[in-house]
Amino acid sequence: MSHSVEILSVGTELLLGNIANLDAQILSQGLSELGLNVFWHTVVGDNPQRAREAVAIAKKRADIIITTGGLGPTCDDLTKNVLAEAFGKKLVFDEDSAQRIKSYFTRTNRPMTENNLQQAMLPEGCTVLVNDWGTAPGCAFEAEGCHVIMLPGPPSECRPMFLYRAKPYLLGLSEGVIASHTIKLFGIGESTMEAQLREQMNHMQNPTLAPYAKEGECELRVTAKAPDDAAAQALLQPTVEQVKALFSDKVYGVDVPSLEYVVLEGLKAKGLTLGTAESCTGGLMAKRLTDIPGASQVFKGGIVSYTNEVKAQVLGVPQHLLDQFGAVSQEVAMAMAQGARKALNCDIALSSTGVAGPDKDEWDNEVGTMFVAIATPEGCHVRSLHLGNRPVRERLRIQTASHAFDLARRYLSGIEY
Amino acid sequence: MSHSVEILSVGTELLLGNIANLDAQILSQGLSELGLNVFWHTVVGDNPQRAREAVAIAKKRADIIITTGGLGPTCDDLTKNVLAEAFGKKLVFDEDSAQRIKSYFTRTNRPMTENNLQQAMLPEGCTVLVNDWGTAPGCAFEAEGCHVIMLPGPPSECRPMFLYRAKPYLLGLSEGVIASHTIKLFGIGESTMEAQLREQMNHMQNPTLAPYAKEGECELRVTAKAPDDAAAQALLQPTVEQVKALFSDKVYGVDVPSLEYVVLEGLKAKGLTLGTAESCTGGLMAKRLTDIPGASQVFKGGIVSYTNEVKAQVLGVPQHLLDQFGAVSQEVAMAMAQGARKALNCDIALSSTGVAGPDKDEWDNEVGTMFVAIATPEGCHVRSLHLGNRPVRERLRIQTASHAFDLARRYLSGIEY
Repeated sequence: MSHSVEILSVGTELLLGNIANLDAQILSQGLSELGLNVFWHTVVGDNPQRAREAVAIAKKRADIIITTGGLGPTCDDLTKNVLAEAFGKKLVFDEDSAQRIKSYFTRTNRPMTENNLQQAMLPEGCTVLVNDWGTAPGCAFEAEGCHVIMLPGPPSECRPMFLYRAKPYLLGLSEGVIASHTIKLFGIGESTMEAQLREQMNHMQNPTLAPYAKEGECELRVTAKAPDDAAAQALLQPTVEQVKALFSDKVYGVDVPSLEYVVLEGLKAKGLTLGTAESCTGGLMAKRLTDIPGASQVFKGGIVSYTNEVKAQVLGVPQHLLDQFGAVSQEVAMAMAQGARKALNCDIALSSTGVAGPDKDEWDNEVGTMFVAIATPEGCHVRSLHLGNRPVRERLRIQTASHAFDLARRYLSGIEY
Repeated sequence: MSHSVEILSVGTELLLGNIANLDAQILSQGLSELGLNVFWHTVVGDNPQRAREAVAIAKKRADIIITTGGLGPTCDDLTKNVLAEAFGKKLVFDEDSAQRIKSYFTRTNRPMTENNLQQAMLPEGCTVLVNDWGTAPGCAFEAEGCHVIMLPGPPSECRPMFLYRAKPYLLGLSEGVIASHTIKLFGIGESTMEAQLREQMNHMQNPTLAPYAKEGECELRVTAKAPDDAAAQALLQPTVEQVKALFSDKVYGVDVPSLEYVVLEGLKAKGLTLGTAESCTGGLMAKRLTDIPGASQVFKGGIVSYTNEVKAQVLGVPQHLLDQFGAVSQEVAMAMAQGARKALNCDIALSSTGVAGPDKDEWDNEVGTMFVAIATPEGCHVRSLHLGNRPVRERLRIQTASHAFDLARRYLSGIEY
């Protein structure tokens, strides 16, 4: 049987535009991976009457209603009250949840007010979805042919509550398992990737193949449905191998979080250290590397040389290169990487220099002209980039940093640059 | 008359979770500033039947319906077809729009297919909202007591189309103007701020005061409605002054984009230069400064010293301080700032060192133990932070960088640290 899902988010802050509805996105991704059809997103504010009307509409058209938000004491537990009423259920006090709320406040050393205990009132006969990431418990019940699941609003709670509480509950509703792998690519455009896929693997049903693109990277998610995980993996594996073969060195990993993660893991595996010298990326490379816990094992540090003076004085870039070729040049990119390798005493150094905009530089280089270089014990390599198509400063900086990471990833894997 | 608005977004990519509904957020912000009440967000996919049902619901409960998405040739212009049908209007060919679509393709040097011209079919008698940011024109009409506005889906088109096309149209519906100022605060919690405001300015009607909190910062938006801008400003000014006086040195600016922006402006005004030395923030300070175009006028560069070796070798932090106090200490924070000031040859240097987690450091410092320091021609100052309440790595790093910027902002404004 095919389910139809409505995601109903409750929160005036969404209607004021203070925040985007990230909950709906998180849930939609997760539900699609489960093979469940999300047909509607609805948002209402902390208003009982409009919430009641929205629930009445959802009840008529969907057979799974997932709510986010409106579980806290400040909104009078609007969501629970309205959903319980709509399905003719009483709210009853759940002692276990009350204990968990009390201990949450003790643990985080914050004072608890009495209305926090309101959160322990839950629809009679529901499955309690224990919230280990905040105070408001979620819950799930089935009534009148409809499955209702209520999750807290803050994305930092909604995300794990979906993953660890709602998802297992929903898996019980679908037959078999859904498994997926994500193949990550760098250095290929989305349209090129899709064009190549169209020829190779048309009419796929199980597994399915879904492309995504963001910030100059592409990914392909392969998803299969089968009676058990082993059978799903058996379905997935040939497609994963086929895609890897098709895109060969453009594939930087399967089920890995990011390019910089792959670089750090490659360094750890080889016992090598890394340093950075950044001009146009202005610290973004170091920031992305140190976003990852444990980066300090292999990342020694970086130098942001935003002026020629720092390039010369701290990185030791020869003044005659700066004078002859300008800061935005292959020669300076390489000298920066070599200088960082020496100054930071690391095995590998990455560098960036370019024009992030909004204006051309004084050497008349166009916005989007970028150079990234890598210095290793075996020598130096530089890549020239022309990212001028859609020259948005933030995007240019992200892509340039990714290109530098791609050089490191290729060096560490022994692939041609 | 008080309007009630529904934002209806059309797009299967939203229901799959490929993207978040940023359009709804952008529009909600803008509509709230116009004093219009957004009561509902709805999302449906590229499915005519469900779109028709959603429009029927919206027509019953809202008197302004704003749609986003579903205007392109790939979805058969779903939105226009469904809305025109719901309000009994024909679609007619608009020659001006057709010309604009043709010249858009010529200008961007891309081939046009015949179905692109479908986008020139618009509801009879509508106001065409010219799209200078893409191909699909928007439109607006009034029928059966309801205002309908259709905007394209991509946020890069939806945002300017709202601002420059829909907003003027909507302003015609409301009497007078709405003006606002945003007061930015750092170093005060949202609940403390709200508690102080409750006493001082209860029952405000015009102007209104709305608090927002994010990433350890707070802001207060003061909004007034009046017959013209001068009258609105006259209403706003006393409240802005009152709030500034109430929170005194916690206020870092009015209508400014960020703390780092204020720091860069302060440096420019005084003709001073800045450098950074980062441990726990790992490049985030430099990244945030260089996110801002023109930072290079005053920001000379930074050193990310993620290891003690780099702290000693590049920043010149005395080894005995590292041995005696550990890298996470007041002493090392100050030595880092002083070292950066010298190495980068800048007037002011900021530093950070601390434990961003997820684990304690080898000196048994708790996650969230942070030190930020500033070195200036007049001397050095350090601030100790204990951000352990909700120790999420990303949040800790953002807040620590902000605290360093706060030191610079205070130095540049001659306020006590």
